[in-house]
Amino acid sequence: MERYQPPPSSQPPERFGLRMSVTASIAHNITPLTPVSFLTRAALIVPNKIALVHPERGVRFTYAQWAARILSLTFAIRNTPGWRRGERVAIIAPNTPMILEAHYAILAAGGIDTPLNIRNNEREIEYVLGHSGARLILVDEEFAHLIPKQLPSGVHVIVSRDTGGTKGVQESADAYEAFLDGGRKIWAQAEEDERKRYGPKAKKGWELLDIVENENEACALCYTSGTTGRPKGVLTSHRGSYLAAVANAFEAQLTGESVYLWVLPAFHAAGWTFPWAVTAALGTHYILRRVDNNQIWDALNHGGVTHYCGAPTVQIGLVNHPKAKKLDRVVKVAIAASAPTADLLAKMEALNLEPVHVYGQTENYGPFARRYREPSWSDLAVEERARLMARQGHGFLVVDEVRVVRRPSDDSSPATGKDERELIDVERDGKEIGEIIMRGNLAMLEYYNDADATAKTIKHGWLHTGDLAVRFPGGEVAIADRSKDIIISGGENISSLMVEQELADHADVLEVCVVARPHERWGEVGHAFVVLKEGRKGNIDKEALRAHCRSRMSKFAVPAYIDIVDELPKTSTGKVQKNVLRARLAKL
Amino acid sequence: MERYQPPPSSQPPERFGLRMSVTASIAHNITPLTPVSFLTRAALIVPNKIALVHPERGVRFTYAQWAARILSLTFAIRNTPGWRRGERVAIIAPNTPMILEAHYAILAAGGIDTPLNIRNNEREIEYVLGHSGARLILVDEEFAHLIPKQLPSGVHVIVSRDTGGTKGVQESADAYEAFLDGGRKIWAQAEEDERKRYGPKAKKGWELLDIVENENEACALCYTSGTTGRPKGVLTSHRGSYLAAVANAFEAQLTGESVYLWVLPAFHAAGWTFPWAVTAALGTHYILRRVDNNQIWDALNHGGVTHYCGAPTVQIGLVNHPKAKKLDRVVKVAIAASAPTADLLAKMEALNLEPVHVYGQTENYGPFARRYREPSWSDLAVEERARLMARQGHGFLVVDEVRVVRRPSDDSSPATGKDERELIDVERDGKEIGEIIMRGNLAMLEYYNDADATAKTIKHGWLHTGDLAVRFPGGEVAIADRSKDIIISGGENISSLMVEQELADHADVLEVCVVARPHERWGEVGHAFVVLKEGRKGNIDKEALRAHCRSRMSKFAVPAYIDIVDELPKTSTGKVQKNVLRARLAKL
Repeated sequence: MERYQPPPSSQPPERFGLRMSVTASIAHNITPLTPVSFLTRAALIVPNKIALVHPERGVRFTYAQWAARILSLTFAIRNTPGWRRGERVAIIAPNTPMILEAHYAILAAGGIDTPLNIRNNEREIEYVLGHSGARLILVDEEFAHLIPKQLPSGVHVIVSRDTGGTKGVQESADAYEAFLDGGRKIWAQAEEDERKRYGPKAKKGWELLDIVENENEACALCYTSGTTGRPKGVLTSHRGSYLAAVANAFEAQLTGESVYLWVLPAFHAAGWTFPWAVTAALGTHYILRRVDNNQIWDALNHGGVTHYCGAPTVQIGLVNHPKAKKLDRVVKVAIAASAPTADLLAKMEALNLEPVHVYGQTENYGPFARRYREPSWSDLAVEERARLMARQGHGFLVVDEVRVVRRPSDDSSPATGKDERELIDVERDGKEIGEIIMRGNLAMLEYYNDADATAKTIKHGWLHTGDLAVRFPGGEVAIADRSKDIIISGGENISSLMVEQELADHADVLEVCVVARPHERWGEVGHAFVVLKEGRKGNIDKEALRAHCRSRMSKFAVPAYIDIVDELPKTSTGKVQKNVLRARLAKL
Repeated sequence: MERYQPPPSSQPPERFGLRMSVTASIAHNITPLTPVSFLTRAALIVPNKIALVHPERGVRFTYAQWAARILSLTFAIRNTPGWRRGERVAIIAPNTPMILEAHYAILAAGGIDTPLNIRNNEREIEYVLGHSGARLILVDEEFAHLIPKQLPSGVHVIVSRDTGGTKGVQESADAYEAFLDGGRKIWAQAEEDERKRYGPKAKKGWELLDIVENENEACALCYTSGTTGRPKGVLTSHRGSYLAAVANAFEAQLTGESVYLWVLPAFHAAGWTFPWAVTAALGTHYILRRVDNNQIWDALNHGGVTHYCGAPTVQIGLVNHPKAKKLDRVVKVAIAASAPTADLLAKMEALNLEPVHVYGQTENYGPFARRYREPSWSDLAVEERARLMARQGHGFLVVDEVRVVRRPSDDSSPATGKDERELIDVERDGKEIGEIIMRGNLAMLEYYNDADATAKTIKHGWLHTGDLAVRFPGGEVAIADRSKDIIISGGENISSLMVEQELADHADVLEVCVVARPHERWGEVGHAFVVLKEGRKGNIDKEALRAHCRSRMSKFAVPAYIDIVDELPKTSTGKVQKNVLRARLAKL
């Protein structure tokens, strides 16, 4: 890696302009909030610091080099035939320098950053490409097969070989590097034109670009991976992305010493804004193309990693890996999707991995709520800490109150009125179930080209998450269930999450998922899919698990069916695919 | 302190509404940025955490109590006869609960927070009160004498005895507590009216207030202490205050475990936004009415303090105090006005006080730039670290590029054009001197009611600081001089700051100040006022100091006059009053 030399198009010019220009219509006391600013600031302040390491390919860039590459990409994008402000640019890539670069350059070009889920199949990719109307696609060669054979005319595809130009653009025939090289030439020409016209007053580098005038303009379009139905396009703004990144940097306590490991896919809700948050803190990105526990442990043990994000399912594999060993420093881990169990929490803590349970959706820029650890917790048993940590609902810095409100008795009412008075909070008693709602700078703009879905989600000025929860006196909330995951059995509401948590508490259980199964008499009953820990098979059977449930919950909540399985189907982001399990049951 | 019971008006109601309402005209994805949100968020998330301790008076409030007091104050302020949005409310107080409470309540009421400098004399106070047009004055009884005997009709004065209601409002006759009590009654009545009209849909507590609709609206008016001329009123916005507070919380690494010691006056540039930043991080405010080294060391040794801010002159007294001892934790210290000398830096580090040199003015919400410590610095000698630390100019998170630009040859030109191209950066060579300029969200709105001064400061869309500096390749800057502190001697420009730094390097020198003195032949010459370290008098004379200067600087820069004095005149914020020294010279 010492001998890696970035290609010429990744070299910053000697006098590098490192701020975007502000048009004269903007008052002196306003700079529109856009995450692009984090990059120019980092390149100005820590030009020689490593912005990004990508060990698999032997690539790394300093912040000055990275800002040069991204400026080249910006010019290349703007040079696409017929380019207009607001164009969608699709990215189909695992975690690579390209996807992080695109998360800046598309915004800087005035486009809309549209990362696609590489776990989608060709039909889904075709749907999303069509729905977004992207006319420029940046794709990693490993996933080039996902692109439809027949593309509408006017759609351009740039294939990256993820070389970082290591072999020189010519030899490697890396079209992405050649694309950057082309952008660099346009940028150089623009500088030359400026010099001729304005002499010492010429603009240089990033000054050649104007910062977005309206910070509320859309900048990203992230499709929900949606366990059911077609993906919906979540449209978000420059301002929201900026503030979400600041909040994530603050909550994760990222600093200039931080090394962020890319375990979470950077396409997922724009990587939870971490492409921007890490750079805002002047930290370093550590790239991994795939979730590989072996490589993750190498990065943790030898790469100086201080932070990463991931679902509990990712952690389970990690803590049980042969290379797992106690780290010489605390590594902060943001965990979403569900809270770590006591067993997982204990194992993580023993390795010096410090989990923070966060909550959010693509609709709110990824995580936007958490729970703050209280000093008194350190005296508690790990089971109790896990129980407390399962609650969240404390809005991040910059986030408004996270509310839980009563669902109107007639849920089909449009409720699109503007008066927020119509939304009535549940009691903060840890019992009354309602829906989590939020609003403000970390709420999406809308579902792109889907007024119906938008109207169902934005009601009375608040974004309705669809997640059901109870609220506690300190304002924290505990998810009772995603609304569609409630099992209604003989008129009783069963929280499948509660049943899952109780089963997961069993010493022999590794993972569990409970879904509703149609039932003639009860309407629905619970069906549990259980993965046992390594070497525990044969030690325990369904009946023992059922007895465990009976000792922990009301009789009606005990799953009528329990299957011991080898693994659970999961999305690319580690969420269990309940829809796949439901489909399996529907076939019975 | 255990037995302190806050008065009834400081008790939160059982079901406390802890968000401000958002009017229906504001989109679901926007919450206007205002620092008031930090308070309601803290009271929601950590209701029982200590928000504020004030040991001298045995007072402390939890965040829920504090939010109740501040809501009471807000209603009381809005109840002032003839109250209108945009009214200025003056505060004349040392660091007390009242001034911190006012920094929230005035904003929440839609007023303009106008803290006055308690070191001003009666004439200056009268000028500022008249200029601001404040019709409500909150004053601490210790400084009530500063208020003019004859006030215009319609001006209301509320005198605080800083009791926190300890003895009950009736007994203590604390008019400020009675004012809060009145506000609480209005708030209670408003809740009652809501309940009657709306039943379960009634608004409660903070929900009774609407959040500011336009975040760019003015919210604070802080007068510069100005070493020369009349104070100017710096008008700042909700948005700027919010973002500055976020930036300060991030840069200082404030967290929920932080205890911030109020050494810096809370009236000075609204306490550098720390009244908001500490609460944004869910930390605790530790109040001291005055800068008393004995009390500061008690707070450091026994109060769990983690952060404070202050000028180097404050630190000098502190490190040399008999109670000074190495702390068992690192305390972060933001130092402004000038950089710590090597001697001071070494002493601070030995005590576990970790200084960060920050730079800013009232015009940019206090500090907005710093320098990031680099890992390699730990290997350097303390002299070298002090030299590196003296540079700053790295804009905080949320701050645009801090520039140094060539001054136009004809400095009297209006230069109010809008084209920023007219501003040409100096070379980043550490040599070329220019003026520090900045723009964006941390630039003031304007000088209140002073279009001329505003036009001289806001030029080509950038705020001109008046400070002269050189810039280095890494973007960092070193102050060459406040422009008015340049000594022009025989056609040579002498940086008085440079001369001061060289003199301060002498082992026997405690503090030094150099000003220009009129001179028949040379136009101006330097005159140094030197304070020697305890017990060093008699060890050294003027000639030895002059010899030291000659060994360090060009002959023309060696001060023509050197006086050894007992102390230097200082402003309340610890800045040396060069104007007082100049006046002393003028009398010669």
